[in-house]
Amino acid sequence: MPISNPVITTVAPVPPFAQGLVRDLRVRWALEEASVAYDTELLEHPNIKTDEYRQRQPFGQVPVYRDAAVTLFESGAIVLYIAEQTGTLLPADAGARARAIGWMFAALNSVEPYVQQIATVDVFAADEEWAKLRRPGVVAEIEAKLGEVAAALGDKEYLEGEFTAGDLLMSTVLRIPRHTEILSGFPTLEAYKARCEARPAFERALDAHMAAFD
Amino acid sequence: MPISNPVITTVAPVPPFAQGLVRDLRVRWALEEASVAYDTELLEHPNIKTDEYRQRQPFGQVPVYRDAAVTLFESGAIVLYIAEQTGTLLPADAGARARAIGWMFAALNSVEPYVQQIATVDVFAADEEWAKLRRPGVVAEIEAKLGEVAAALGDKEYLEGEFTAGDLLMSTVLRIPRHTEILSGFPTLEAYKARCEARPAFERALDAHMAAFD
Ligand SMILES: N[C@@H](CCC(=O)N[C@@H](CS)C(=O)NCC(=O)O)C(=O)O
Ligand SMILES: N[C@@H](CCC(=O)N[C@@H](CS)C(=O)NCC(=O)O)C(=O)O
Repeated sequence: MPISNPVITTVAPVPPFAQGLVRDLRVRWALEEASVAYDTELLEHPNIKTDEYRQRQPFGQVPVYRDAAVTLFESGAIVLYIAEQTGTLLPADAGARARAIGWMFAALNSVEPYVQQIATVDVFAADEEWAKLRRPGVVAEIEAKLGEVAAALGDKEYLEGEFTAGDLLMSTVLRIPRHTEILSGFPTLEAYKARCEARPAFERALDAHMAAFD
Repeated sequence: MPISNPVITTVAPVPPFAQGLVRDLRVRWALEEASVAYDTELLEHPNIKTDEYRQRQPFGQVPVYRDAAVTLFESGAIVLYIAEQTGTLLPADAGARARAIGWMFAALNSVEPYVQQIATVDVFAADEEWAKLRRPGVVAEIEAKLGEVAAALGDKEYLEGEFTAGDLLMSTVLRIPRHTEILSGFPTLEAYKARCEARPAFERALDAHMAAFD
């Protein structure tokens, strides 16, 4: 079923460290890959913490997506929904499709929880004693995970055949430690991220994402 | 397409703190809900860290699932695959289905990364100074997330209509802090977890899961 009247709700303004990372980027990218035009609704930060907004996003976060058929939160679920509805970003074969979805969950459940910790210790908890003590362990854990992703990627262009929703999510997870040198220790992952981000759909999505902060 | 010859690969033995938490439980539960019989392959811990095993699970973890059509990792993706192939655990309506999948991602990407930290500070890093300093913050973050899940649940039986794959995953996430008193601060979530776990399919799954450690 094609999508009608999609609207992405996100937050603006955000501090410089978050510009280019807010997870509406994933949803914009998926819609661009599917060549579906969308509207945006920009909310200021206090307005994503109201009871009314939490009816749409229980955690008081962004993005929220809606179209004529559904209102949805969780960037991973939204990307999957767009892929399914538009017949993009997922292989048709059931096994290959399941493996691409496997990489979506790997990005968000096996890699992001570790990678996100570097933002916690360096940005959100930067002045706390525990964060200083913890930082080397966080870096080591991220390096272990990235080494495992690099080994799985090998010399392939994408994680599983063609570019899929799994690569879309994984490459956005790889953006998170951009304030560090961590990714440069993994040249094949850097090249993979660059390959994903060279897609015209990504460039359009990032431009629109950044324009919200002008 | 029905599933044929499913096999769950998992690890045994594991230390007592992990018994009842290893993520093969989710996959067993999904197969039980779908009334699909399965085989298991039990590996000892060193054997999930080999290069050969990493061909099946790049992070050297469990579970891995295979059937006649596919080999798959990531418990979330496996549960979704089983739900789709067997027509269980997800509503038929596209919007309701997308929202149930939204709760799957919420469980694994918005709640579990916080909840899992209590296992990190209390078990894996228990003797480290940073973990002692960090613990109150971890508890506060988990309580914030659980309060948000409780608010979303309200007085409903399940997160979104009937019991879905979203409830299956969320209730297993709620098991993780069982060594603490955290969940008892949220009586409606405790009741919700008990309601999910009273399902005969869960009881069979947990029994089989625990039997692997006998
Ligand atoms: N698991 C959620 C995470 C959403 C999330 O972390 N959103 C952040 C921006 S990227 C947010 O809204 N932060 C503002 C806040 O928490 O106050 C998803 O993928 O949609
Ligand atoms: N995101 C993965 C996580 C898998 C995971 O954390 N597995 C744990 C057991 S629950 C494991 O294999 N631990 C052993 C190890 O890491 O050495 C999934 O949901 O499948």
